[in-house]
Parts: sequence; structure tokens; C-alpha cells
Amino acid sequence: MKKVRVLPPATVANVVCGFDILGFALNEPCDEFEVEITEEPGVRIVNLDEYNLPTDPEKNVSGAAMLAMLEETPDIKGCIIYSKKIIKPGSGIGSSAASAAGVVVGLNHLLGNRFSNADLVRFAMFGEKVASGVKHADNIAPCIYGGVTLIRSIFPLDIVSIDAPPLYATVVHPQIEVRTADARQILRQKVLLKDAIKQWGNIAGLVAGFLKKDYDLIGRSLEDVIIEPVRSILIPGFDEVKKRSKDAGALGGGISGSGPSIFMLSKDELTAKAVAKEMEEVFIKIGIDYHTHVTSINSQGVKIIHSA
Amino acid sequence: MKKVRVLPPATVANVVCGFDILGFALNEPCDEFEVEITEEPGVRIVNLDEYNLPTDPEKNVSGAAMLAMLEETPDIKGCIIYSKKIIKPGSGIGSSAASAAGVVVGLNHLLGNRFSNADLVRFAMFGEKVASGVKHADNIAPCIYGGVTLIRSIFPLDIVSIDAPPLYATVVHPQIEVRTADARQILRQKVLLKDAIKQWGNIAGLVAGFLKKDYDLIGRSLEDVIIEPVRSILIPGFDEVKKRSKDAGALGGGISGSGPSIFMLSKDELTAKAVAKEMEEVFIKIGIDYHTHVTSINSQGVKIIHSA
Repeated sequence: MKKVRVLPPATVANVVCGFDILGFALNEPCDEFEVEITEEPGVRIVNLDEYNLPTDPEKNVSGAAMLAMLEETPDIKGCIIYSKKIIKPGSGIGSSAASAAGVVVGLNHLLGNRFSNADLVRFAMFGEKVASGVKHADNIAPCIYGGVTLIRSIFPLDIVSIDAPPLYATVVHPQIEVRTADARQILRQKVLLKDAIKQWGNIAGLVAGFLKKDYDLIGRSLEDVIIEPVRSILIPGFDEVKKRSKDAGALGGGISGSGPSIFMLSKDELTAKAVAKEMEEVFIKIGIDYHTHVTSINSQGVKIIHSA
Repeated sequence: MKKVRVLPPATVANVVCGFDILGFALNEPCDEFEVEITEEPGVRIVNLDEYNLPTDPEKNVSGAAMLAMLEETPDIKGCIIYSKKIIKPGSGIGSSAASAAGVVVGLNHLLGNRFSNADLVRFAMFGEKVASGVKHADNIAPCIYGGVTLIRSIFPLDIVSIDAPPLYATVVHPQIEVRTADARQILRQKVLLKDAIKQWGNIAGLVAGFLKKDYDLIGRSLEDVIIEPVRSILIPGFDEVKKRSKDAGALGGGISGSGPSIFMLSKDELTAKAVAKEMEEVFIKIGIDYHTHVTSINSQGVKIIHSA
């Protein structure tokens, strides 16, 4: 087999009290990529959408990830990436991670799954470096592993899958721009020890809640006393979205990645839909365009679809 | 039944990356208390050891906890506490918590377990306030619940039991004094965000390691980049004890409570005994007297023994 179609999913990183360490994959939206092994050396990128992303592989997120992988696959000369972005760049739900993760999972499939998931994360991080200047795995890990993933340590990389009970996610993407660089810069370099203690109590509670399948504990632990109070200022309507979502039955939630998307977790689909309605009303009132997604946690990671 | 004998166990709080939120109970040592319901109003304390602890109940750790409980048991006039301390005060393995937890568990047993564990923690915290001036549940929670306990939040109190695989603990108590107040004062009020992120990655990993019964993950997560580097300076030999313990096969460990005791966790008893030997050699070399305990995690909490 020389060609494969892959659907890498959107992901939520910086899950509330799990800033920089916890993420999860969504069932929707997904990008659509095809990876084809060729005799032509190097990586060729064919864009099938309107985003005009760079076709120089070193400047393209998928391309950079693929080049890193090709360095360790001397038996492969090159490949073509057919790229159709569905996850809007800049939305805060792991668009660049999907680009990077999708193509390396695709090539690995064509190679008979020669590499481990940890290797694929390592390759895909080269794509994140092109996107944001920083090698991080917050979105890549859940995109590749599926489900909820803990990045206990980034160097050396230590990814831990956290089994979670069924959860529905509602995501709203207000059509404003929050630059990752701005969202980083606004954070203080030092935090109060007493706040840090609250935060690690909550992340411990959240991980325990997932693994014990205790929805109430998940809800009580979805609290961020360090990052959210600072970053939420960049997202108009944030506080009202959060309040109304919880009043509508959401377990809790917060900023997705570095924003501007906001996510909420619910126990069932009906609640997740009611939450979407609340979110929409807030942004209609403020007068900001938005997209909402009602979906569930994707336990599989990148979906592989064989091409003809 | 009017009288009961209880054996409240020693406990380890501030478990490495779980400062202020994570503790566990040990099978040994245990204090020995008897609680007897009387017609005589108030709390009378009878010391059966050499520690000369105060017999004024308001100034006595067990007494203060019992007085708090009696306020909510109007049908009981008073009680006598027979107190034999085995866990040395000031050792850092929850001596005051054992005093407070033991007597309230004892009285609750005599009352047909009228109160929940959460209520008992609430009463026992009055004892901790007498001991250290601060109401904290780090040692009381594991002493009462048994096993590994997470205190996700102290106000409002939210205690989560964390199932763990079988673990052996080696504890060394060097005969030096580390005052809790000094150990608190030495801490910085602010910490670097990047260190806090490492810490919450590790506590998330540690909780996941316990619940997934993954010993390697437990070992990798037993790392404290915030408290231990500061506090370990107060404990001569700390770094060498830690290094030699891990070389001997311990999963990891650190300061117990605010010291001076040091604990190490191991997968099996043989390793835990080898670790004790290493600890002893370090303190023999330095010339500091010590006690060691080789024991396992107590999943039961306060042991209840019916009196004649």
C-alpha cells in the first residue's frame, strides 16, 4: 500500500487545572489528509483547501513533521501530502497538531506501524515548532494516543493515557484572534505557592476523577486558579459562558489551549447541546460571530481510512 | 459498650510532589488509646506513658478533638481517654494526628458509627490546631480513611481515597529536631510557574500511577522540585539517604511531613529492608541516632480492638 487517508482530530490542551500537561481528543472536527509514498525525493505538499498554507515543507507544519520522520526512514525516498484543513488555524483546538500528527500517523500506517506512538509524537513536535516556535506535545499527544493524555514530563517525554468515562464536549469558537504568543506573555513567571497547592490538589482530583469514573469529582476538580483568571480577560464573554454552561448542567470547562475557543464537559449529549445553546446566546448578545461543536471524547486518536 | 481500645497509625503527609494534599497511613507504629464513656461531664485524660503531655483537655491534642466531638453528641456526658503514645511527638510521621484521630474514631465506634469519616476529620482537626496552630488534614485524613488519601480541598473539605497497589515503606527518624514552624518559614511564598507545572505533572502522574497500579510511573513521578530542595537542607544526610535508597531499589520517597523523618516506598519487603540498612549506614556514619521502621501501607486506618 502506497497511499492512505487519515482524519486527525481536534484536541483540547491546557485542560483547566492541567495547564501544559493535560489534553484530550475530540471526535469532531477532523482534518482530512492523504499521504502517498513516492519515488520522488522529499516532501511535496498539495493544498486542497482555501487556507494557502506554505507548500515549502520546512515552513509547513505537516511538512516539517514529515521531514523529521523521513530522516529515520531511509528506505522511503519521499511522499506527497494532500492537505485539506477543516480545523480552523488559530481556533485553539489543536489545528497545527492535527496537521503534524495526521501525516506521521498516516506514513507509519503505510510502514506497517514501525514506530511507537511516542516516536510519532517526537516527529510531530517538529511541526509544532514551525507553528509556534516551541516543541510541545499538549495537543499532539491526545491527537495521536486518543482519549485523555497526561504529559508528565516533556524532556524526557513521558506520556500517560488516562482512561476516562464517556464525556461529551461542547466547544465554542468565537471569531476573534488570540495570538498564542500574547497568551503566553500575559502569564506571570511566578505564582503564589498557596495557589500552586490548590492547582495540584485539583489536577490530582481531576486525574482521580477520570480514573475512578467519578463525574462529581471531575466537576469539583475543574477549577484553575492560576492561568484562567489571567487569560480569560482576552476572551470576551468568557465568564458568562462559563456560568451559564454550568447552570445548564456542564461539569465544568475553560479555555481550550490558549483560546479563543472555550470548552465545556458534560455527562450526556443532551446537556452538551443545552450548553451549546447558552454559549451561542452569549455571543449573539455580544455580537461576535462563532462556531460551536457538540461532540464526544475521541478514544482512538487519528482515524485511518484506506484510500482506493 | 462503654469502652474501646484503638490503635491509630503513623502517617506520611506531604508525599513528595503532593505537598499539603497527599498522605498515606502506615501499618506501624501505632499509638494505643482507650476511650471510655462516663457519667462524669467533660474529658479526663490519663497518661500511660512518659511524655508528660498536658492533661487539660483544651491543651491536649486528643482532648481538643474529643471536646469538639462532644459538642455534637449531647447524649454523651463525658469520657476518659487513656493515652499511651508510641509514635514519638515531633518525628514527622503524624504523631499528633494519631492522637486526635484515634480518640474520635474510638468514640464513634462506641456510638455505633454515627458520624461519617469526613465528620471525624473535622473533629480531629481541632487536635491539630492545638498541636501546630493550624487546622490541617494531611495526616488526619489517611489516619482515619487508611490507604492513600488526597485532600483536594481543605475548605470546603474534599477528601478522595486513592487506591494503590501493595507498597512497602521504610521510614528513618534521625533524632534531631525540625520544628514545623521553621520548616514552614523556610518556604518561599512564590514559586516559578515552570516549576509549578513540573510539580502538577508529577502529582498527576503519581495519582495515575497509584490508580493504574503502575509502579514504574509511581517511581518516575516521585519527584519534588519545589519543597524538597528547600526543606531537605534542614535534614543532615538527606541527599545521601535518597540516593542510596534508590540505588538499593526504592521507587522513591522524600521528607515525611515537615521532617525530620525520611520515607521511601518499595515494591516488596526485601527491598524495603535493604533500604533501611542503607539509611542506617548513613546516620551511623554521620553520628546521629535514628530509628527505622519497615512497614507497609495501612489500608484500614485506625484499628479498633474491643476491650474487656
